Amino acid sequence: MAFKVAVVGATGNVGREILSILSERAFPVSEVVALASSRSLGTEVSFGDKILKTQVLDHYDFSDVDLCLMSAGSGISKEWSPKIAAQGCLVIDNSSCWRYDPTVPLVVPEVNADVLAPFFADPKCTRIIANPNCSTAQLVVALKPLHDKAVIKRVVVSTYQSVSGAGKEAMDELFTQTRALLTTGEVKVNKFPKRIAFNLIPHIDKFLEDGYTKEERKVTWETRKIMDLPDLPVSCTSVRIPTLRAHAESITIETERKIDMALAYKVLGNFPGLKLTDDVKNNVYPMPLTASTKYDVEVGRVRKNDVFGEYGLDLFVCGDQLLRGAALNAVIIAEEMFP
Amino acid sequence: MAFKVAVVGATGNVGREILSILSERAFPVSEVVALASSRSLGTEVSFGDKILKTQVLDHYDFSDVDLCLMSAGSGISKEWSPKIAAQGCLVIDNSSCWRYDPTVPLVVPEVNADVLAPFFADPKCTRIIANPNCSTAQLVVALKPLHDKAVIKRVVVSTYQSVSGAGKEAMDELFTQTRALLTTGEVKVNKFPKRIAFNLIPHIDKFLEDGYTKEERKVTWETRKIMDLPDLPVSCTSVRIPTLRAHAESITIETERKIDMALAYKVLGNFPGLKLTDDVKNNVYPMPLTASTKYDVEVGRVRKNDVFGEYGLDLFVCGDQLLRGAALNAVIIAEEMFP
Repeated sequence: MAFKVAVVGATGNVGREILSILSERAFPVSEVVALASSRSLGTEVSFGDKILKTQVLDHYDFSDVDLCLMSAGSGISKEWSPKIAAQGCLVIDNSSCWRYDPTVPLVVPEVNADVLAPFFADPKCTRIIANPNCSTAQLVVALKPLHDKAVIKRVVVSTYQSVSGAGKEAMDELFTQTRALLTTGEVKVNKFPKRIAFNLIPHIDKFLEDGYTKEERKVTWETRKIMDLPDLPVSCTSVRIPTLRAHAESITIETERKIDMALAYKVLGNFPGLKLTDDVKNNVYPMPLTASTKYDVEVGRVRKNDVFGEYGLDLFVCGDQLLRGAALNAVIIAEEMFP
Repeated sequence: MAFKVAVVGATGNVGREILSILSERAFPVSEVVALASSRSLGTEVSFGDKILKTQVLDHYDFSDVDLCLMSAGSGISKEWSPKIAAQGCLVIDNSSCWRYDPTVPLVVPEVNADVLAPFFADPKCTRIIANPNCSTAQLVVALKPLHDKAVIKRVVVSTYQSVSGAGKEAMDELFTQTRALLTTGEVKVNKFPKRIAFNLIPHIDKFLEDGYTKEERKVTWETRKIMDLPDLPVSCTSVRIPTLRAHAESITIETERKIDMALAYKVLGNFPGLKLTDDVKNNVYPMPLTASTKYDVEVGRVRKNDVFGEYGLDLFVCGDQLLRGAALNAVIIAEEMFP
């Protein structure tokens, strides 16, 4: 079997990664179509050794498309995903638009692929599946194996997020500002609320009434939904730092059952999607430098913490947010659906 | 009254800041002597509008020196501080050498200046006072006002530490690596265990047997000593990021008594050494960009957290670690002693 696949938002950071991963992992395609807004009409993108010319999303006929990988923002997804799904096409969406909709599963396959079969068996199936926020995706792959053994009671997360999470222009902004600071150029602030070069910004997405940012609440809401733990206390502080690619997270958990280091290493080391990266004697720990462009999320700095004693662990993760946090996760969902 | 003051390590990042702050705050000096290793003999440093020629520490006669501000590393301090103190001179030391010695007070004046009087009244007084680790100093000024009202039970900290904490050469290394990555130069790694430009490193100081770094444990041990809470559970994850100056910290606390936002704002806003920097509607929050070169530690992003409910708070701090974390703290201790 081979499938016709459409990639919407094909010229963006995540869209390009989706095309690259579909090719790398030899997803069984009969045809791949690159779609974007009229602004990008004709822009060329790579799919393996082929060059695709971008077509315009508006009025594209999805009736013979099997799978649509959407990576075009919430506004576009809100308008188009239901129309595309209504034509019988499965939509896997990267935006936050559908993540909290009870009729849409939010999936990290290594954690909750088991929700997919009942979803498709339901006659009222929406044919829309949501991809989580990039920070959440790498958090839940680290939490799941620990939860299965020891039952997680509380989670405290602080993130170290790279600029590529904010798009291609954000990467350019870090380069441009850095160059300006190293010479005598003028620093211009455009994509981020403040200067990012040689700075950090504890502000990603908009602020909510409770003082958290929406980015931080996405981590709380989505972790609960993916892990099916609707009351799990999760507090997140999301911080942008001047790295280019891969997000890192400092994580503290409390568990219901005691968890010792040997067990923690064993379950983290065996979990698909994770790479145990914890050999501090040889200076091996998760970092953007080593996690960037890799499929697996690095997990390391695992240690018993003081705060929850026998019932707690500290860990540090780093994963490529364009891959695990977006493109790769979407393609793995697709592989589950079109095996 | 005016006092003869010696600054040891006068050519380093912290030594230069000490000289600058003594002048800025008009500390009552009769004479200031700049001392360093023989390598720096004759190097000129500024003290206000004066230029001081650096003299060599070895065999300098401290018998008429009132105050010695040491910022020359643990090895030098271990050898010299007791000798200098034995000549009747008060030593305020920036290294980690004496911090855990029960005969040496560890002081952040806004938090525990009250230990100084009984220390000097003791006939066995060592005449050595320790300055805390830079991350600890800014943590305890944020914790103290909250502790006084609500009693802190647990602390989880993740740090975002700038390169200047590792010295002047470390700052040069960030610049050189960044330039190399923006052009086609070769990236050389020297002061840090890994590349720091456009990367982060969850490894500061050496690793201990329990999986924590010594830098992380300094935060635990020193917070307990300064706040006189010997059993306080404090877990820290210390991370170097590519910023030049000022460290930031994401902090989660649990308290024994309920603490509401109005009370938290009030006590944080009134505490000396802190600047409440929390107006998210106008994008005001702590950042290296605004905290660098400032005396006060910025505190913001204050919010009730999910993890400890009514008994918890999340906050974010950023402070200039060369000032509050080192030079300024030492000078404020000196002001307490020589008012």
